[in-house]
Amino acid sequence: MKQNNVTQILHWDESILSALREDIPWEDVSANSVVPAGVRGKAELLCKQDGVIAGLPVFERVFALLDPAAEVVFFAEEGSRVQKGQKLGEVTAEMRVLLSGERTALNFLGRMSGIATYTRSVADLLAGSSTKLLDTRKTTPGLRIFEKYAVRMGGGNNHRFNLSDGVLLKDNHIGAAGGVRKAIEGARAYAPFVRKIEIEVETLEQLREALDAGADIVMLDNMSGETLEQAVKLAKGRAETEISGNVTRENVQKYVKLGVDYISSGALTHSAPILDLSLKNLHPIE
Amino acid sequence: MKQNNVTQILHWDESILSALREDIPWEDVSANSVVPAGVRGKAELLCKQDGVIAGLPVFERVFALLDPAAEVVFFAEEGSRVQKGQKLGEVTAEMRVLLSGERTALNFLGRMSGIATYTRSVADLLAGSSTKLLDTRKTTPGLRIFEKYAVRMGGGNNHRFNLSDGVLLKDNHIGAAGGVRKAIEGARAYAPFVRKIEIEVETLEQLREALDAGADIVMLDNMSGETLEQAVKLAKGRAETEISGNVTRENVQKYVKLGVDYISSGALTHSAPILDLSLKNLHPIE
Amino acid sequence: MKQNNVTQILHWDESILSALREDIPWEDVSANSVVPAGVRGKAELLCKQDGVIAGLPVFERVFALLDPAAEVVFFAEEGSRVQKGQKLGEVTAEMRVLLSGERTALNFLGRMSGIATYTRSVADLLAGSSTKLLDTRKTTPGLRIFEKYAVRMGGGNNHRFNLSDGVLLKDNHIGAAGGVRKAIEGARAYAPFVRKIEIEVETLEQLREALDAGADIVMLDNMSGETLEQAVKLAKGRAETEISGNVTRENVQKYVKLGVDYISSGALTHSAPILDLSLKNLHPIE
Amino acid sequence: MKQNNVTQILHWDESILSALREDIPWEDVSANSVVPAGVRGKAELLCKQDGVIAGLPVFERVFALLDPAAEVVFFAEEGSRVQKGQKLGEVTAEMRVLLSGERTALNFLGRMSGIATYTRSVADLLAGSSTKLLDTRKTTPGLRIFEKYAVRMGGGNNHRFNLSDGVLLKDNHIGAAGGVRKAIEGARAYAPFVRKIEIEVETLEQLREALDAGADIVMLDNMSGETLEQAVKLAKGRAETEISGNVTRENVQKYVKLGVDYISSGALTHSAPILDLSLKNLHPIE
Amino acid sequence: MKQNNVTQILHWDESILSALREDIPWEDVSANSVVPAGVRGKAELLCKQDGVIAGLPVFERVFALLDPAAEVVFFAEEGSRVQKGQKLGEVTAEMRVLLSGERTALNFLGRMSGIATYTRSVADLLAGSSTKLLDTRKTTPGLRIFEKYAVRMGGGNNHRFNLSDGVLLKDNHIGAAGGVRKAIEGARAYAPFVRKIEIEVETLEQLREALDAGADIVMLDNMSGETLEQAVKLAKGRAETEISGNVTRENVQKYVKLGVDYISSGALTHSAPILDLSLKNLHPIE
Amino acid sequence: MKQNNVTQILHWDESILSALREDIPWEDVSANSVVPAGVRGKAELLCKQDGVIAGLPVFERVFALLDPAAEVVFFAEEGSRVQKGQKLGEVTAEMRVLLSGERTALNFLGRMSGIATYTRSVADLLAGSSTKLLDTRKTTPGLRIFEKYAVRMGGGNNHRFNLSDGVLLKDNHIGAAGGVRKAIEGARAYAPFVRKIEIEVETLEQLREALDAGADIVMLDNMSGETLEQAVKLAKGRAETEISGNVTRENVQKYVKLGVDYISSGALTHSAPILDLSLKNLHPIE
Repeated sequence: MKQNNVTQILHWDESILSALREDIPWEDVSANSVVPAGVRGKAELLCKQDGVIAGLPVFERVFALLDPAAEVVFFAEEGSRVQKGQKLGEVTAEMRVLLSGERTALNFLGRMSGIATYTRSVADLLAGSSTKLLDTRKTTPGLRIFEKYAVRMGGGNNHRFNLSDGVLLKDNHIGAAGGVRKAIEGARAYAPFVRKIEIEVETLEQLREALDAGADIVMLDNMSGETLEQAVKLAKGRAETEISGNVTRENVQKYVKLGVDYISSGALTHSAPILDLSLKNLHPIE
Repeated sequence: MKQNNVTQILHWDESILSALREDIPWEDVSANSVVPAGVRGKAELLCKQDGVIAGLPVFERVFALLDPAAEVVFFAEEGSRVQKGQKLGEVTAEMRVLLSGERTALNFLGRMSGIATYTRSVADLLAGSSTKLLDTRKTTPGLRIFEKYAVRMGGGNNHRFNLSDGVLLKDNHIGAAGGVRKAIEGARAYAPFVRKIEIEVETLEQLREALDAGADIVMLDNMSGETLEQAVKLAKGRAETEISGNVTRENVQKYVKLGVDYISSGALTHSAPILDLSLKNLHPIE
Repeated sequence: MKQNNVTQILHWDESILSALREDIPWEDVSANSVVPAGVRGKAELLCKQDGVIAGLPVFERVFALLDPAAEVVFFAEEGSRVQKGQKLGEVTAEMRVLLSGERTALNFLGRMSGIATYTRSVADLLAGSSTKLLDTRKTTPGLRIFEKYAVRMGGGNNHRFNLSDGVLLKDNHIGAAGGVRKAIEGARAYAPFVRKIEIEVETLEQLREALDAGADIVMLDNMSGETLEQAVKLAKGRAETEISGNVTRENVQKYVKLGVDYISSGALTHSAPILDLSLKNLHPIE
Repeated sequence: MKQNNVTQILHWDESILSALREDIPWEDVSANSVVPAGVRGKAELLCKQDGVIAGLPVFERVFALLDPAAEVVFFAEEGSRVQKGQKLGEVTAEMRVLLSGERTALNFLGRMSGIATYTRSVADLLAGSSTKLLDTRKTTPGLRIFEKYAVRMGGGNNHRFNLSDGVLLKDNHIGAAGGVRKAIEGARAYAPFVRKIEIEVETLEQLREALDAGADIVMLDNMSGETLEQAVKLAKGRAETEISGNVTRENVQKYVKLGVDYISSGALTHSAPILDLSLKNLHPIE
Repeated sequence: MKQNNVTQILHWDESILSALREDIPWEDVSANSVVPAGVRGKAELLCKQDGVIAGLPVFERVFALLDPAAEVVFFAEEGSRVQKGQKLGEVTAEMRVLLSGERTALNFLGRMSGIATYTRSVADLLAGSSTKLLDTRKTTPGLRIFEKYAVRMGGGNNHRFNLSDGVLLKDNHIGAAGGVRKAIEGARAYAPFVRKIEIEVETLEQLREALDAGADIVMLDNMSGETLEQAVKLAKGRAETEISGNVTRENVQKYVKLGVDYISSGALTHSAPILDLSLKNLHPIE
Repeated sequence: MKQNNVTQILHWDESILSALREDIPWEDVSANSVVPAGVRGKAELLCKQDGVIAGLPVFERVFALLDPAAEVVFFAEEGSRVQKGQKLGEVTAEMRVLLSGERTALNFLGRMSGIATYTRSVADLLAGSSTKLLDTRKTTPGLRIFEKYAVRMGGGNNHRFNLSDGVLLKDNHIGAAGGVRKAIEGARAYAPFVRKIEIEVETLEQLREALDAGADIVMLDNMSGETLEQAVKLAKGRAETEISGNVTRENVQKYVKLGVDYISSGALTHSAPILDLSLKNLHPIE
């Protein structure tokens, strides 16, 4: 797994500490009631559902931030498939830290793994084709950096990260600009030249206008059947094509056959259920 | 709807601004490419799925923070059932603000409504009984204040908010303390006296020990059938009872009949899909 | 002493750094004028007044944050009685760090020890009885986490920490709700079920209403003599009793005899003078 | 009263919001249980002890931050003497805001007024003389800006604010530098030229060395009787003189007669008890 | 001028407040010594040098943040040429606010206008050609958002904003990847597909490799004379071309003739002297 | 070099991290595309222009914050003269960290060295005289702590740091106060006594009034020739003298001969071009 320390230091740690403060605004009354300070312990990370694991470095960091002497060993690789009942790792740290950090660590790991698991299941439908799966900006407020990372761990690819680093002109933008060509020209004049320009089109006419105006990517919206087929052909070699929407086992073959470059899905991040995981067998060690 | 302004000012606004900064680290290149500053516009909030709406004040606040002159009108009440195709509200603001705030506003509203919708569907199973539905601490890191609020909007009730404001002694705590009684005594000695003490028990023997030691709430874990029935009877009048786990249309009648006080479910917050909503028909106004 | 590292990492360090920045917005001009960087030194922590010491881990942390190689040794236990002239510890660190951190370290330690000392003197009046001493929310803005900890070190107990984690219905709440019963019912319906409900009553009639409505704790306000005696009897076994106000050597016996459960005092945190301490005999070491 | 809005906007508001978040990490459960949102009310600020009032703008700001429509009227001037029973002001705001902000507002006001009251009582001892009363850096961590302001409201003067904006060479600095002259020369070479240089001397010999080296201010430490008299004479016209320590009704005449320029006292900020104030007669208004 | 309010609210205000806190960590002692609170005044913004003005909205915001009632009128348009002696605007606000905010407001405005002025002078050399002027990431730490905006106001264009939103593979990246092709393929596999891929090449061979591998932009480094000419021809129609380095009146014609698409210059932001401006004729108004 | 660790910990690190976050809001896409995590490398810091180096500890800290195992060796002393082509140091760290931190490290170092270089060139003009060179508050918003440090490294001295820690009464203050004497008296009454009082005077009459009123420092504004000569004589022994304005090789001798104490120059910080530096020869090591 490629662990990106720079991102962790600049961004992850802050979010992790903030989540810990949300859960422990004062102190962990339950843990501190029953465990004296200084007692070290060990616990196991267990998988309770089949899926894809993502977020192990975040899980580890929760304990490391609370206890610099914490040691975490993993028996599964980030981004790999895991199975119900599998022991994924062991954490050694202060007993109080194990108890106090458990929920936050699992909240991150379960959510990220849930996204990776769901993404994997969709990406598998595209396996063997040249069509790639993309995420969207429909992420949980504050967690985008974790969720887009989880999408990659599940075999998906990232679309733009935010409104500043990618241009995507939708119906509202086109309406405001006064047409497809004007929208593209506006973006070309305004946006830094390193941005590709993507535009959403709903008809073949709009598509032609977009291609002529030099769009780098076209999102084919609400097209189906023959129209879609024609659209992909028209765009081939002139712009990359993206389809946004619900991919199902049934319809995916169609898109793949047409040779669409990208399929994007908001559900990857906004509706994936968590992967069920737990921290078990906590016991003191000397 | 009871809108809590103090909480909004002290906590919501910060999270909302932070989410906006996540989506707009610089500027909205697309919007600024096609719409000049100063043009005002209007858009409609549409519902694309049946469900329960929650988070309208957050939705409104996104636009109000970006444009103090923004005006939002809602045609549905917070916490009410909404239907596919229903127009839920109208937003009037700077066109640029409508475009730049749209995704963040919908990300909050969709997620919160998703939780409310799912919660409502579970709470309905308990309708007419005295058994109440509770959430857990299995919330999205950083969003607990929004998610627990959404649970209430969906007809659920909040369990403790964090590790500092409630005592819940689980198997790990009991093990560390050296038994049920010792765990409870430890908590009574350590925790502020305004905290109720809840403990998780797995056997009738543990339950008796907990009741004798004065537990305020007992969580009946892994019990079923006759044991569970006995447990609830034993606890009646001496402590409140909570069952944690998967409530289904099939098993819920059983719990209700037994007279369990509370059923808690992590899924309310960790696995609810979003409610599909969109901002449409954006157009300039003079 | 039970040192809570999780709380230190999540909360103390931030306050300590903030206090250091308040005192050193730029650099310590005096220290840097006379001591070159890199020279290590040692200094002694001396007690200049009899009292109870509290805040040693905070004192230590001030130096450790400025100099990771700082070493602090204490000759007194946190929460213990100390005497005028007693040497409480030794700090070894960069000379510049000793000079720059001194005032902030002592400001925390003196204030926390002042609270512990005052609390101890009041708690001693209750020694041998079952009546416990409580603090209030009348703490210094921004320092509650340190001050409530100091109260515990002085033998007191903590009441609720904030408005979110405890319910206390006072005259204004009762007035707003339209009576004692309504206030309690409102709280029961609104507050998470893990909160105990406390209410302030001024008459026996109010007390009866509170008990009937199921209050968990009753604060007996402005009651004295026979009324108070009756009130405590009435509440016995039905609710815990708290008296708020000035405890003196004279009146304390009375309360104790009545069997009141708790006496709370704002003065513990809002009016305790500091304990006089100083850092002396600073000298370079090689 | 000179209200400094720039300081309020840049510094006060942040501390006030932070104190409110400390007291309301989530929501005010009690207030929200009994008062619906939107009901406006009024309450009176009453004085329960004789003293000097300081912090009225902070008190007002607490409510204004929570409710932009809050209206506060004061019947006493900032820095003036107030009496037990006096009605100091009226606050009109949302009922919930009045209940939720009350404690934080009073915690600030009581503490600041306590300092002003104590300072006034000491400053009165110096009335009519040319000797001025100074505070020190022995302030509450995080609250220095409020406490030094309160000292001024009580008739005291501010010494330096922090280690960056004033030079004060104490015994430890002198030891480290290798003598009085060297310490002063070090400071002159290192510190920005706009800083006055103050040095603490314990003997007449040190004093002469300090004066010869050009000290701007000399703090006469541990001197008494004839030595002190000589010291003040020696310094007259060459440097300002400061005495640090306990001023009492008995010894103050002595210092004043000697013509000492400044007397500084840490107790002004570290040991003043609060002034007892309360918010009463809360009632809804239409 | 296109004023972007969303960016101002989300990003500018924070930096402005932070700069004000840097200059006023406590209070403005000089202003508060001589002007009572509440007196309103007016001052003029004068230009003391010919140049291009940029940052007027920031200048205005400094005063608006300190005094919501501040009124600023400008007599020059953002991004326009201004002349020595020209009166650019008038500010009406609290006298104290005018004095306290002056330096911070001018520090922003002078620096931004300095960049715009310098950029304009370079951009003028390219006037009439299709070659565009670009900035770089050689900006002042913390001020990039202001400086890149100033470049635009001076007629320049923005290159990528940061390391996350643009791909630029330099010699070090190529070395690490093991060649031009591998570097490009690595980026294509790793980077979100919405990023264009730019690569720095030093020889015609590297250039051909880059074009074959599908680079979107090629930066021609250390090329001159005939080689450069060939390079531009080779790239024409296959990739955009950028030259980085010192543009002078002498050499600019050469680049323009060759038809290079972009010339980037770090000096625009790292070495432009400020534009001299001042706030004068402050006087009270009633 | 006197490295001030306290200032680094309390202030530098925060600015450095903030600058890194500005440049890497997400991740360094280019570096992560071509270099796997965990590969360590080495690079050289080269000087590309003659000058004075300042900011080496900041440069080092950029890498140390991103990679605690980073090692930096310098071959030049902070504040020393360096030459084109000189190798100033070597950095060993993760390859990814070297690539990701390079620009931020150089942005700090180039800017600080630019200021030191320019300051040195001006300070050299004063060499051998008793006149000292001062900076002003015309610094880059947010970077004052770094820039004033750089001035010192270049042989300059710091004037006041901010509006709170020095009193400087300019024409606007004098106008507002109603005259020179009134302004000085106002400041003496209001400002903490540890502040020296500086005032700007434009005529000999104003100067006399200032000296009689006890000004500590007089800034002689717009004076020249004989008037200036007289002014310096008048002030000698009664107040320190400062001249603000453009020092040139031509006019500096005049000021020096007159015996002016200080010459201040805003250009040191607001208009110094950067010193050109680069990180080269990056290569992996095992």
